[in-house]
Amino acid sequence: MTIPEPAGPDLAGVHAAWLPPEAFRAIGSRHTLVFGEGGLVGTVHDEVARACARYGGRVRRAEAGPYDLVLALTAGEPLPEAAAEVRPAEAVGDEGYVIARRDGVTVVLADGPAGLLYGLFHVVRLGERAFAGERRAEHHRPATRRRMLDHWDNVDVHPVMGQVERGYAGGSIFWRDGAPRGDLARVRAYARLLAACGVNAISVNNVNVHATEARLLTDRLGDVAAIADVLRPYGIRVHLSVSFASPVAVGGLPTADPLDEDVRKWWTGVTGRVYETIPDFGGYVVKADSEGQPGPFAYGRDHADGANLLAEALAPYDGVVHWRAFVYNHRQDWRDRSTDRARAAYDHFAPLDGRFRDNVILQVKHGPIDFQPREPVSPVIAAMPATRLAVELQVTQEYTGQQRHVCYLAPMWREVLGFRPWGPGGAAVADVIGGGDLVGVSNVGDDPYWTGHPLAQANLYAFGRLAWEPRLDPAAVLDEWIDLTFAPVANGDVERSRHTLHAVMDDSWRTYERYTAPLGVGFMVRPGHHYGPDVDGYEYTPWGTYHFADRDGVGVDRTRATGTGFTGQYPPPWSEVYESLAGCPDELLLFFHHVPYGHVLRSGSTVIQHIYDTHFAGAEQVIEARRRWEEAAGLFDPSLHARVKDLLDEQVRCAQEWRDQVNAYFFRKSGVPDAHGRRIP
Amino acid sequence: MTIPEPAGPDLAGVHAAWLPPEAFRAIGSRHTLVFGEGGLVGTVHDEVARACARYGGRVRRAEAGPYDLVLALTAGEPLPEAAAEVRPAEAVGDEGYVIARRDGVTVVLADGPAGLLYGLFHVVRLGERAFAGERRAEHHRPATRRRMLDHWDNVDVHPVMGQVERGYAGGSIFWRDGAPRGDLARVRAYARLLAACGVNAISVNNVNVHATEARLLTDRLGDVAAIADVLRPYGIRVHLSVSFASPVAVGGLPTADPLDEDVRKWWTGVTGRVYETIPDFGGYVVKADSEGQPGPFAYGRDHADGANLLAEALAPYDGVVHWRAFVYNHRQDWRDRSTDRARAAYDHFAPLDGRFRDNVILQVKHGPIDFQPREPVSPVIAAMPATRLAVELQVTQEYTGQQRHVCYLAPMWREVLGFRPWGPGGAAVADVIGGGDLVGVSNVGDDPYWTGHPLAQANLYAFGRLAWEPRLDPAAVLDEWIDLTFAPVANGDVERSRHTLHAVMDDSWRTYERYTAPLGVGFMVRPGHHYGPDVDGYEYTPWGTYHFADRDGVGVDRTRATGTGFTGQYPPPWSEVYESLAGCPDELLLFFHHVPYGHVLRSGSTVIQHIYDTHFAGAEQVIEARRRWEEAAGLFDPSLHARVKDLLDEQVRCAQEWRDQVNAYFFRKSGVPDAHGRRIP
Repeated sequence: MTIPEPAGPDLAGVHAAWLPPEAFRAIGSRHTLVFGEGGLVGTVHDEVARACARYGGRVRRAEAGPYDLVLALTAGEPLPEAAAEVRPAEAVGDEGYVIARRDGVTVVLADGPAGLLYGLFHVVRLGERAFAGERRAEHHRPATRRRMLDHWDNVDVHPVMGQVERGYAGGSIFWRDGAPRGDLARVRAYARLLAACGVNAISVNNVNVHATEARLLTDRLGDVAAIADVLRPYGIRVHLSVSFASPVAVGGLPTADPLDEDVRKWWTGVTGRVYETIPDFGGYVVKADSEGQPGPFAYGRDHADGANLLAEALAPYDGVVHWRAFVYNHRQDWRDRSTDRARAAYDHFAPLDGRFRDNVILQVKHGPIDFQPREPVSPVIAAMPATRLAVELQVTQEYTGQQRHVCYLAPMWREVLGFRPWGPGGAAVADVIGGGDLVGVSNVGDDPYWTGHPLAQANLYAFGRLAWEPRLDPAAVLDEWIDLTFAPVANGDVERSRHTLHAVMDDSWRTYERYTAPLGVGFMVRPGHHYGPDVDGYEYTPWGTYHFADRDGVGVDRTRATGTGFTGQYPPPWSEVYESLAGCPDELLLFFHHVPYGHVLRSGSTVIQHIYDTHFAGAEQVIEARRRWEEAAGLFDPSLHARVKDLLDEQVRCAQEWRDQVNAYFFRKSGVPDAHGRRIP
Repeated sequence: MTIPEPAGPDLAGVHAAWLPPEAFRAIGSRHTLVFGEGGLVGTVHDEVARACARYGGRVRRAEAGPYDLVLALTAGEPLPEAAAEVRPAEAVGDEGYVIARRDGVTVVLADGPAGLLYGLFHVVRLGERAFAGERRAEHHRPATRRRMLDHWDNVDVHPVMGQVERGYAGGSIFWRDGAPRGDLARVRAYARLLAACGVNAISVNNVNVHATEARLLTDRLGDVAAIADVLRPYGIRVHLSVSFASPVAVGGLPTADPLDEDVRKWWTGVTGRVYETIPDFGGYVVKADSEGQPGPFAYGRDHADGANLLAEALAPYDGVVHWRAFVYNHRQDWRDRSTDRARAAYDHFAPLDGRFRDNVILQVKHGPIDFQPREPVSPVIAAMPATRLAVELQVTQEYTGQQRHVCYLAPMWREVLGFRPWGPGGAAVADVIGGGDLVGVSNVGDDPYWTGHPLAQANLYAFGRLAWEPRLDPAAVLDEWIDLTFAPVANGDVERSRHTLHAVMDDSWRTYERYTAPLGVGFMVRPGHHYGPDVDGYEYTPWGTYHFADRDGVGVDRTRATGTGFTGQYPPPWSEVYESLAGCPDELLLFFHHVPYGHVLRSGSTVIQHIYDTHFAGAEQVIEARRRWEEAAGLFDPSLHARVKDLLDEQVRCAQEWRDQVNAYFFRKSGVPDAHGRRIP
């Protein structure tokens, strides 16, 4: 029995997150057969073995039973009896598995080693429940092909953005001050956490590719290979963000024109060398012609030309290119009300549908602007039937409290994934990307709690779980996370811990929405760092993010009738629903319409009163969350409790600042007093 | 004849500013006697000698005449005949001089060597006029004891503020990346320019004293001494910004309590060593208990305790401490309308009048807030008859266009210095600081033109000249600067150059005022860097700089009747003038009063129409200035002309941005259309 060091759960000084040793108690105290061959089967075996070493159980690879748990590949011969009985009629795929229990034996069967690993973590989630009673065979397979985290980590510390762009959890776990950290134990522990929630791909550097990072593709490829070696045992493939200008920047060519023959040869050669070094390399991530990054426009080419260039180089190796659709004019004249940043991705990409190679994945942010707490779903998702799509979510809380505020994002993601672009009878977003990719921007750093705010771990966990199964209920995912993270170590009263966490987290995204920019209008944050309120901060800037508040009203007219016409990018019924002042959902009203302060919402409130009410309520809810957390002091590890308490103090302060600035701003503009006579400063 | 290298006017790649070789033509082509002894007499001699080497004249120290020019110390024996005839009846002081011309001999007589140097530069300013006709004896002596430039230069590059805090002219001429630059030729040339406009003191590091800079007082004092050696031949003494926490930060003591005996001993010892190294050291500059800098408050002491501590250590050497009065709460709650940053300096310091030692100079910013383009004069200036005062001006254009905009500041400074705090019959600010100090924050860096914008050189020149003689007319100072800088090198038509420069510069401060924050309300700049508009940028921040605009009106009520009571800090008649809505000068109306947009100004316009009119006019005036400059292309050195042209393009762009943002902001708030129907975006 070998226990690989130091991938175990006891990384010194680092919180175990959702894999504390106690989560393996049920398995570790039983008899398990791990049956089959392959690298990841070894990982499954080692996980069980480590648990058994701690809790007195036993694990074997071949010996006759009896066993409490059988983890077996379907291809194994002869399949152990218990497993043979639940063998599925059809294949469950590379990553799928079947779980069943009969006659006192719990069985996990998988077609491939990765499936066995995911099945193991399913048993971990079940804990003692995995070994109780009977369980009819359940088939599990992931809804998406790739469940991917994009790390916006820089190798060099960026003078403005730091080691991790939009990172709120310390430094990078991969890089420090221009070099690899070397601490691969931390990366290994990360890989294990990700496998446990279903993530199977990581890109290891920022989509804004600077000079040093560009060299990861060439002379610093070894740094990437070292990471790939550590991720591989957990079924995670490594991807790399590359600069479209690489042929010039690191190749010394005079051009990066995608139709230039030397450029094509360069990418072919470079990519070949990548696969010689990392045979299971995942592919490239590209931010092109966006916010100053180079792209095909410089050569009079379009994004299909650009993406296909890289896709062609990757195709022989089954690699993919994630080509981001986040392309817009970031030098807009704020005086020009006809330009609409919300339109940009659709205007750029919809006409290219059908022109992308099969291994191009167009990576679309979930909303049309940029990760605001409330946006409509991007119309691009419904506009490109002949293109493979990935939806990009932001796990790192750039616009949702920066891991100083509790903001459990699964409810928002669930809404996005469940949105039906063609109306109630049509497919959901989750179906559109079914078999495709869900991508999240990572919220992880070298912080002892991984995510800065300890409760932000739940967002990382939920991202993986929703990527695997988009129909999961966010509260149920939270329970999974609580059961793994807190229940085994709860000081006594598990159910009180659970109630506290649900009270603090379940509604935290809507609470955040309440005290920040109202009714979907977005972007009232301080420019640059994006933390805290500044109602007019982006109002007269080139960034295309405006609310147009004046003394009479507020909101962006994106209708076809009188506005920018953005509503026309949606198929019916949404093209009509959003166009209609009466039909538009309240929470998106100011995203689609400019209305007077006295406009009556579907809720019955006026816009101005809604602003006051939600901002008073949101700030109150944070105070209540803090009260609940304080009450639960004895239920949590003291240092974790103290950190969350400190962060809740900051959240209370900041929420009140949001409340007062937004209310004061709109009171000064509208002159309408609060109907309840509350003080607006 | 020795010509010191390389203090000459031909520093490679650096613009000669107001001392091109041609400015010395009149002297250099004549016969001059330099009579007397002392280091600065040697400087006078060398200056004349260098001019003679170029233009064929002759300079002697003793020989019999005839001479065209005699520069002599009154103490010399026997005084040359021509000089003896104009010997003044009373002393003109260390820095004063008499200039006269009779019988074809121009005579400069001075009691001290510094006076002789200033007299020489007077002759330089006169040029050929110095040698024409007769000239009755004129007595010149500086109005102020110290004409001082504070450099906000950092030794280390500060992560936010850079090498020079609020510097817009490249790096520091003293420091680079944590060390002295070594390039003392540049410092020597700078000293020469300063002597030519009358400056006699420099502090060489930022008032925000960081870790490295704190050590200039101790183990890095040699770096300061090297600068002092270069400044000395031009009559300039070196001062040092020190941290009040130095006893702790560099002394290793457990406290910096000003009443602690060990702390007093520490300062005494350190100061003694400073004077051993730099016998003519000027003294300390201190920013204490201000914007995060340490100070006596931490020990329950007041600013008199703090300042007197350092003054006591400096007293044996005739050193002084410049103690800044810029103390305010920079963590103010914007919701609290009773706190008024404008009151802070008076509230802190007026009660301490009479408690400061003789060698404490309380350094007061000219306005009560922070170097805005328009502020009333600080009431502190009238409130401390028993305290020596320095008035601080900001030559660096932090809030006046950052040396990308033409903004000739002498008219503003002239208004400040001519302001009569006790009314028309009373003393002016210039009288209050008479014999005291005028301090300017330097606008110089390692830029080839010294000041980034070539025309910003005029501000540096004018600062020195107004410090010497506060009653000078700004247009006349501009002519002096033109005559020295441009006339000798003008391509042909000197008068056309002059007209162009007057057209572009004379009214440029008022133009800047027109297109930026209206009617004295100030602070509508982008937070942090302070360039360009952001009307609400500081409105909801802790900085105490608010305009309180709402849908009905705008401005800060600082009256005693209904506001913060700041008007009561002025003596009559200003306490009444500012209090009165009818009496308050238009240009300060919103500094003192909150008024409806329809309020009719003394000019007859409404506030809102005034905002529109001035912003349209200001932007137009910049376009007109650019047109004038373009027309004059042939009159100036092409590279200088091109740089100013590029900067005027930026100024046009930025002025239009100011115009549109301010107008749009107030139109959206007030709903009042422009009376002339112009487009407001």
